[in-house]
Amino acid sequence: MGRASGPPPPGEIWIGDDAAIVTPPSGPLVLATDAVVGGVHCDLALTGLDDLGWKGLTAAVSDIGAVGARPLHALVTFCVPPGADVGRLADGVAQASAEWGCPVVGGDVTAAGDVVVSVAVTGVLDGPEPAVLRSGARPGDHLFVTGPLGASAAGLRVLRAPARRLPGDRGPADVSDQLAASHRRPTARLAEGVAARRAGATAMIDISDGLSIDLHRVADASGVGFRLDRLPVAAGAIRAEALGGGEDYELLIAVSDPETLERAFADAALRPPLAIGRVTGDPSERLLDGDPLPRTGWEHRIG
Amino acid sequence: MGRASGPPPPGEIWIGDDAAIVTPPSGPLVLATDAVVGGVHCDLALTGLDDLGWKGLTAAVSDIGAVGARPLHALVTFCVPPGADVGRLADGVAQASAEWGCPVVGGDVTAAGDVVVSVAVTGVLDGPEPAVLRSGARPGDHLFVTGPLGASAAGLRVLRAPARRLPGDRGPADVSDQLAASHRRPTARLAEGVAARRAGATAMIDISDGLSIDLHRVADASGVGFRLDRLPVAAGAIRAEALGGGEDYELLIAVSDPETLERAFADAALRPPLAIGRVTGDPSERLLDGDPLPRTGWEHRIG
Repeated sequence: MGRASGPPPPGEIWIGDDAAIVTPPSGPLVLATDAVVGGVHCDLALTGLDDLGWKGLTAAVSDIGAVGARPLHALVTFCVPPGADVGRLADGVAQASAEWGCPVVGGDVTAAGDVVVSVAVTGVLDGPEPAVLRSGARPGDHLFVTGPLGASAAGLRVLRAPARRLPGDRGPADVSDQLAASHRRPTARLAEGVAARRAGATAMIDISDGLSIDLHRVADASGVGFRLDRLPVAAGAIRAEALGGGEDYELLIAVSDPETLERAFADAALRPPLAIGRVTGDPSERLLDGDPLPRTGWEHRIG
Repeated sequence: MGRASGPPPPGEIWIGDDAAIVTPPSGPLVLATDAVVGGVHCDLALTGLDDLGWKGLTAAVSDIGAVGARPLHALVTFCVPPGADVGRLADGVAQASAEWGCPVVGGDVTAAGDVVVSVAVTGVLDGPEPAVLRSGARPGDHLFVTGPLGASAAGLRVLRAPARRLPGDRGPADVSDQLAASHRRPTARLAEGVAARRAGATAMIDISDGLSIDLHRVADASGVGFRLDRLPVAAGAIRAEALGGGEDYELLIAVSDPETLERAFADAALRPPLAIGRVTGDPSERLLDGDPLPRTGWEHRIG
């Protein structure tokens, strides 16, 4: 890699040997891994290798945030076809590494037919509260998301068929630019995950495959049902993109005391969480506005 | 994954959530990652997906052993084309996981055109001795390898062109079988790495790309030269395979006191280390039997 942010602290060994040596805080260690593949997680005709690198690191870091932990260190593996611009991949990884405060301490580069960015991240749970799992939602809990959904899928749509811009017509193009940016450079909701854990969240997941399937996963793991009465759709996105688009990386949070969550977000100067519904005790009840919510999600396939 | 060995200890969360929660011993944490790719690190017409899974986990665990650490936990990502037998990949990973005592605590599966097994492993340094890096070799140190070399490359050669066996002719076929097994199911020299660290090894590397290039890497990192006077060639392998074949995963060890190393290996009931030469103070001196040792290594490309 060679692109980590700054030198290692004294006593640590980062890139260049067989293994890295780091000194995490004592106590539980959080581990997550994710991979993104050119042609699957992005269309490399529409987005850059730097965007793929960003997305690979961000997706793995987001998994750390989704249990309420803070990322510590990343290991990054690139699989690249002959002639691929590894430097540009590494640039995107380094930008995300700096953005999420998660230095890359080791890695591997190997030949392959596809471009693959595989990232493993360690993390730590600051404070005494335990990790927030998918399995802790209880009947009566309030459900929140950390932001409107569907922007990444809408961004891919916009990139595929850019709207023609008329002279002086700035508005829609600005929205399109924002949607494209959401697809190219997703955000990991790290501060939100930590705030939710410390505010007593009972269950949490990052919405990587779409609200619908990820909410079903939480309900399955918790043995509960849900009734949604609101679907926050990102500006310029459509409902189907918000429900099944995937790669938004907003957090879905269950919490018994919504005021504590809202106060914690306000205290941390975070965007207010958006209430979307309630957890119910009947695992067969999976409703949005009274209708069954289909278990659909992003199919991890572009094009 | 779902194939880790046994249930997690109390308080730990393994497979199934966004992230795993583990409790490593306090102190330095060792991190390594490696990836193997079908068609690059093995020919899937000659070896199985289970072999690729084994090799992926073993290569990453070997990096942990190469600094003298003991592996703790693995994260495994599979990239697979449609229809690939993920179960067989996972079987090989699970077999290696059991063999090296390194449970798989999390993972990811995604679509791709190639079969990729990307593995990240955490490890711990038992005892007070520091990690053994590539950069610690000093003039006068003795150089050892943990076993004869070239078996993996010779095994690939045998798999590509199996010798015809005559009735009653068992000997050469047995050697061929062993070489093929060395290629399909390499061994991580974990106990050897720990013993070498505790015996005061000054530098160490696992020979994943071939003795020649990996020895040059140690010499480069340490700012030293070397004179080799012995090349241990595996039975059935040739010198070129021993020097540049790669994927043997034997350890190359530099140590100032060879008797202590040999005694530590004997005390641990390990195969005696094989002396191959000495470290010298002239970084431009890189000799095998008096001739310059070319900086050749395995090119990470099959076929």
